Amino acid sequence: MKRFLAMALVLATVMFLGAPLLALAQEAPAATEEAAPAPPPVPDPTGTAIGAIADIVGGSANAPTKEEVEKMAADKDAMLTKVADVVGHNKIGINMTWTLVCGFLVMFMQVGFALCETGFTRAKNASHTMGMNIMVYGTGLLGFWICGYALQMGGGGGSPTLGGTMGILNSEFSINLFGKDFGLWGLKGFFLTGDSYDVSIAALFLFQMVFMDTAATIPTGAMAERWSFKSFLVYGFFMSMIAYPLYANWVWGGGWLSQLGANFGLGHGTLDFAGSSVVHMTGGVAALAGAWMLGPRIGKYNADGTANAIPGHHIPMAITGVLILAFGWFGFNTGSTLAGTDLRIGMIATNTMLASAAGAVSALLYMMFIYGKPDLSMAANGMLSGLVAITAPCAYVTPTSAVIIGLISGVILCISVFFVDQTLKVDDPVGAISVHGVNGAWGLLALGIFADGAYGDGVNGVTGTVKGLLYGDGGQFMAQCIGVLTNFVFIFCAFVIYFKIMNIFVPMRVSAEIEHEGLDLHEVGVIAYPDFNLNKTHR
Amino acid sequence: MKRFLAMALVLATVMFLGAPLLALAQEAPAATEEAAPAPPPVPDPTGTAIGAIADIVGGSANAPTKEEVEKMAADKDAMLTKVADVVGHNKIGINMTWTLVCGFLVMFMQVGFALCETGFTRAKNASHTMGMNIMVYGTGLLGFWICGYALQMGGGGGSPTLGGTMGILNSEFSINLFGKDFGLWGLKGFFLTGDSYDVSIAALFLFQMVFMDTAATIPTGAMAERWSFKSFLVYGFFMSMIAYPLYANWVWGGGWLSQLGANFGLGHGTLDFAGSSVVHMTGGVAALAGAWMLGPRIGKYNADGTANAIPGHHIPMAITGVLILAFGWFGFNTGSTLAGTDLRIGMIATNTMLASAAGAVSALLYMMFIYGKPDLSMAANGMLSGLVAITAPCAYVTPTSAVIIGLISGVILCISVFFVDQTLKVDDPVGAISVHGVNGAWGLLALGIFADGAYGDGVNGVTGTVKGLLYGDGGQFMAQCIGVLTNFVFIFCAFVIYFKIMNIFVPMRVSAEIEHEGLDLHEVGVIAYPDFNLNKTHR
Amino acid sequence: MKRFLAMALVLATVMFLGAPLLALAQEAPAATEEAAPAPPPVPDPTGTAIGAIADIVGGSANAPTKEEVEKMAADKDAMLTKVADVVGHNKIGINMTWTLVCGFLVMFMQVGFALCETGFTRAKNASHTMGMNIMVYGTGLLGFWICGYALQMGGGGGSPTLGGTMGILNSEFSINLFGKDFGLWGLKGFFLTGDSYDVSIAALFLFQMVFMDTAATIPTGAMAERWSFKSFLVYGFFMSMIAYPLYANWVWGGGWLSQLGANFGLGHGTLDFAGSSVVHMTGGVAALAGAWMLGPRIGKYNADGTANAIPGHHIPMAITGVLILAFGWFGFNTGSTLAGTDLRIGMIATNTMLASAAGAVSALLYMMFIYGKPDLSMAANGMLSGLVAITAPCAYVTPTSAVIIGLISGVILCISVFFVDQTLKVDDPVGAISVHGVNGAWGLLALGIFADGAYGDGVNGVTGTVKGLLYGDGGQFMAQCIGVLTNFVFIFCAFVIYFKIMNIFVPMRVSAEIEHEGLDLHEVGVIAYPDFNLNKTHR
Repeated sequence: MKRFLAMALVLATVMFLGAPLLALAQEAPAATEEAAPAPPPVPDPTGTAIGAIADIVGGSANAPTKEEVEKMAADKDAMLTKVADVVGHNKIGINMTWTLVCGFLVMFMQVGFALCETGFTRAKNASHTMGMNIMVYGTGLLGFWICGYALQMGGGGGSPTLGGTMGILNSEFSINLFGKDFGLWGLKGFFLTGDSYDVSIAALFLFQMVFMDTAATIPTGAMAERWSFKSFLVYGFFMSMIAYPLYANWVWGGGWLSQLGANFGLGHGTLDFAGSSVVHMTGGVAALAGAWMLGPRIGKYNADGTANAIPGHHIPMAITGVLILAFGWFGFNTGSTLAGTDLRIGMIATNTMLASAAGAVSALLYMMFIYGKPDLSMAANGMLSGLVAITAPCAYVTPTSAVIIGLISGVILCISVFFVDQTLKVDDPVGAISVHGVNGAWGLLALGIFADGAYGDGVNGVTGTVKGLLYGDGGQFMAQCIGVLTNFVFIFCAFVIYFKIMNIFVPMRVSAEIEHEGLDLHEVGVIAYPDFNLNKTHR
Repeated sequence: MKRFLAMALVLATVMFLGAPLLALAQEAPAATEEAAPAPPPVPDPTGTAIGAIADIVGGSANAPTKEEVEKMAADKDAMLTKVADVVGHNKIGINMTWTLVCGFLVMFMQVGFALCETGFTRAKNASHTMGMNIMVYGTGLLGFWICGYALQMGGGGGSPTLGGTMGILNSEFSINLFGKDFGLWGLKGFFLTGDSYDVSIAALFLFQMVFMDTAATIPTGAMAERWSFKSFLVYGFFMSMIAYPLYANWVWGGGWLSQLGANFGLGHGTLDFAGSSVVHMTGGVAALAGAWMLGPRIGKYNADGTANAIPGHHIPMAITGVLILAFGWFGFNTGSTLAGTDLRIGMIATNTMLASAAGAVSALLYMMFIYGKPDLSMAANGMLSGLVAITAPCAYVTPTSAVIIGLISGVILCISVFFVDQTLKVDDPVGAISVHGVNGAWGLLALGIFADGAYGDGVNGVTGTVKGLLYGDGGQFMAQCIGVLTNFVFIFCAFVIYFKIMNIFVPMRVSAEIEHEGLDLHEVGVIAYPDFNLNKTHR
Repeated sequence: MKRFLAMALVLATVMFLGAPLLALAQEAPAATEEAAPAPPPVPDPTGTAIGAIADIVGGSANAPTKEEVEKMAADKDAMLTKVADVVGHNKIGINMTWTLVCGFLVMFMQVGFALCETGFTRAKNASHTMGMNIMVYGTGLLGFWICGYALQMGGGGGSPTLGGTMGILNSEFSINLFGKDFGLWGLKGFFLTGDSYDVSIAALFLFQMVFMDTAATIPTGAMAERWSFKSFLVYGFFMSMIAYPLYANWVWGGGWLSQLGANFGLGHGTLDFAGSSVVHMTGGVAALAGAWMLGPRIGKYNADGTANAIPGHHIPMAITGVLILAFGWFGFNTGSTLAGTDLRIGMIATNTMLASAAGAVSALLYMMFIYGKPDLSMAANGMLSGLVAITAPCAYVTPTSAVIIGLISGVILCISVFFVDQTLKVDDPVGAISVHGVNGAWGLLALGIFADGAYGDGVNGVTGTVKGLLYGDGGQFMAQCIGVLTNFVFIFCAFVIYFKIMNIFVPMRVSAEIEHEGLDLHEVGVIAYPDFNLNKTHR
């Protein structure tokens, strides 16, 4: 290393000292040469003079010359055409930046899930829970790139709001039943090559990917503290490549649920604005299947069937995770317009916020009334429940309805948590089944009840706006019920079958010994808190 | 459960296998039918061809046909009108997305406050401190929706930058004094129903809501570790429904402080660009009232009146919170333009950043000079102080002034912390009174000193730009002083009266026994760190 | 305090009660007066009617009158000019908001670094590691404001995408060698005064500043647990004022590396889209110099030269940091267009995401194959490696290439970590040298290999798009190699020299006693975890 350093020092000395000396030995510095002819530009501290006709000519890389600007201004017809082109490009720019920023926020929800799930589980498994939350992003992303996106969205194309041409990946595989086409999955877009090497499709891919990732991360909470890491790694591919994309295609990719309106007159077909069912119910139902098949953690249930509480090891971490989720959810719901020029986003954001508050408060009050004192964990999960429930209807309802939907979701949560824990006897350490599964279903139904007819004209090829039961459209509610049923049956069965088969090759559950000791060292190679004295965990 | 599963499996088998079989029994798949007549669309990997005149016709949901585009291009006058409409819509789109994204960032500051306050307090109360920070979002949001927004902004309407019509909620309640109208509060917008079911108002509601929430969360730091959770819950409603909206109306909602310029020639009236006083001083003064009335934590003061330091339990958590606040603050300050097309946002963001750095460095150096070594807690609070101080003047000053304002704020912080702790003997675990209250006042005054006349033409109905003392406008400084005085008197008294009365119904302070043991289990039902061995906390 | 309170109460009573009484004693409230003449405005719950021709007239502050709108519509030529101006302004607005939001995300990476570095080091030094991460933002920002920005970007000006006039700070200091100008540094823009008091420059300053800050924070990880805080504080100024700005000028500020294409026909000159070398390799090489000169932590190496693993104290914290970095990186890479209207951002974001996943998965699999089980720390660093490696080429390559680049980066990481640790025997607690330094070099080379010729027309004044070795341009690859060599030689030597000299005045390393005890109390005045029982750390 020393010899190398010496050589480097010599080189650096040449660079540091030699160059200026060389320069001095030559001419004067050329620094101010180029600024000569044109009148000096003026700084603009407020930006009012910045951005004018001159910025229309030319692309983003080169500023136009004065002559170019004058030439354009002289020919009014050409100028109008040019202006119109830039206006259209600006519109796509607004929509593209909006979609991307919202997609980034949704990706950030991965941090929220990681903190929430880890905080609500035990210290001895903290690295393992964290590890599942970071690696699901890795495996899920690759799986979705390989074929998930193609199956889900390959039937359509880029969104027109992002400048995409719908026809570009026009490849939905459909079957004909009762004389109608039932779209099942797309056939183009694998690996984002060929026709899908397109910015509009790339942006849509990113946005759909982070939604899929949200669904994929939900079961890691319900299956925490006992799931083998290798089984989890393989699961990430099944979820991202097959299970999620199929249901998502049916609702969002032009598949059969979205056509229930056009084909059978059931409202606008199954509508799920931002994914109460596509994302959350899918995740929650997969969590139910997984947690049920894995069985409860050792010590969770006594011999007489009564349940023990296993407290989470880091409540500030969990609460932080919940707040981060509430933050990312703004991207989740408002970004689902895929358009910043769709100004309904203002209402969507406010509805999202209101439902989250209502869910938290109603869960808090419910526990206070029934059990006599506040329960912070339940209130935090109540906030998430409100968010899950408003996800489908957020664009279609009024703020008052959003509050009502949120209030109901908090109560549903409390009842469901006890039902899963004590009646079904499925061990769900973080409450994912109730938060995402049950309230996901509630969200889909809530759209069919509360949609007020202000928004959604022409969606899924059906003219007119979207109305729920309370506003007179029973067909829409029917379509929502079919969506809930389909999601439950398909996702539950798909995962039961998948886990049954996969368990033969890669056992799902770690040994009792590892579970007693904690999964961290054996499963992911690193202890979470080596410098801290931990209490012996009994169970 | 088993029977149910069996049924579900049958259903799934039908779906999985039956459908394709049915399909095979029928026609060939319809997958490629629709792509036939039009020339195949071309993918665009760089996006330069995307977004053009075609994107102007039609809404975001449907791509226009070729004929529609050609028809529009044929009639130049109609095209110009259409183009102009889309340009206007784009402009609102830019402003709307900007306001929402910035509002989301401000909401994310709730995470920063939660981590900062919890980190700077003790482990035995960590769930309780976290709980206050998440639930204040819930109660505050509902309270602001019920009547806070109406009182604050009902006198105006949606912002014109968001396409709002100012007149839509034109309902300010004013009194006439000295022949002038003194606006006191708005009278429309309750529950966001009726005329306030409007996207522009929804976006403004969201943005104002997260500001209110910031003010509401500040006292939870100063009153931490001894405040009863029920008393805190009720407080959230008082802050969001009455105290905050009134002062905010006076400065931002068209109320009397904003009219001091038009009515009495005091500059542009009290100006507070992003809320040094409206948000931070309000929060800080409420914190002073609350912490003073609650009394110090057990063990904080000795019999001889000397103060003991009670160290925070998790410094990495606290520092993380501070950095998150600095991140969210970009939304706080730049979003207050309510317009992404107001390019001054570039300067505002840079000023915000510079003041935060200056505050951190000056607090660090001050402590090094006075006490001989760096104090990380004080430096972190110095960063927040710089941010609070630049909040009011951020749009009106130069970068150099921003640095000066920040440097001063760090020194003010250090002096104020010792003054509150040792002279006033008010126990403020996290320094909220000094950071938000004292530096909030400094920020409001700093605007009156350093505003350089580059920005603010016509604000609050007064022609000309905004100038501070150093640039020749003593009236503006006067208006700022009146703002500071009003905030202190009104907020302090409002909260003293409120707490006095409320204490009768819901006692503010937990019992000494609970305080000794830690508030977590009794107040919010969950221990923060059950798996960790904690030191016995002595005080 | 009591007397003051009494006075305040009186004042408040007057305000609360007196004002309404006064009002009642006078006329009826003036609330509805102004809404009289015009037809009442209509709320718009979906926003489809919002934003139209009326929003084009006038600035953002005042809504235009009906006459103004009509007058404009009457004169079609004037209207077209006005429309064109607003379109240009909108375009800059889109680019400005995009650049700022992305800049905020990059600033947020400071949180990611703080958590990642602190989590991977020991509990006894956690406040110190956190302290370096927050204060580097303070000192670095001030240093960059004083002269760093001027040296780096003073040779150019504001970006045209932000409405900046390139000529405004036209001040590059160049030397003439071989008959060609070699730009070395800029000479204008100190303190953002004079001509640099401009919104376009302010936005560019913010964006460049957060990039510099990223580079500056990287060595704090490699030098953690033994670096004296005072030496670190001074380092912040050297990095931000001199070392970083010089190399950044050469690549991004119009300096000599960027001119290798125009001057010597080497492709487009050294290209580094978002900073694999400018930011990450700079940080990583500085980290190598610093960690090497500081020497290993006590107990890291045994007498026989073998290395001991010193486990990080808080893995959930570290993983959270990594995920936050992955989130912020979206801003890092896509924001480097400085333009939301450059729709390539969709592809950039997707490439960024794919490479991060590929890096994480390949590092995980590599460790599983070589060592038989997953290593979460390595997988997390693999995600960062993928991000570092895709940073330079993100805009120039296809998604498939992004995956390949990421897969390779994960393997490079694993090999490099063991090489640094066991062959070079440089103690790098967090792996910063391998993640940022080595993969930064790989990223720069990868651009020269995989660039596919879809993007980059005209960049650095060379016509044609950017192509790598695999697409036929060996010159571009040469330019990349020169960039890597220059970065390594210049940065390494600059820091070795700097540390050698500075060590005389401010010793770099804390005493062995302090290191044993932990740096927190002595160096930053505050213990990280006073309420937790820590294990005795042996080394």
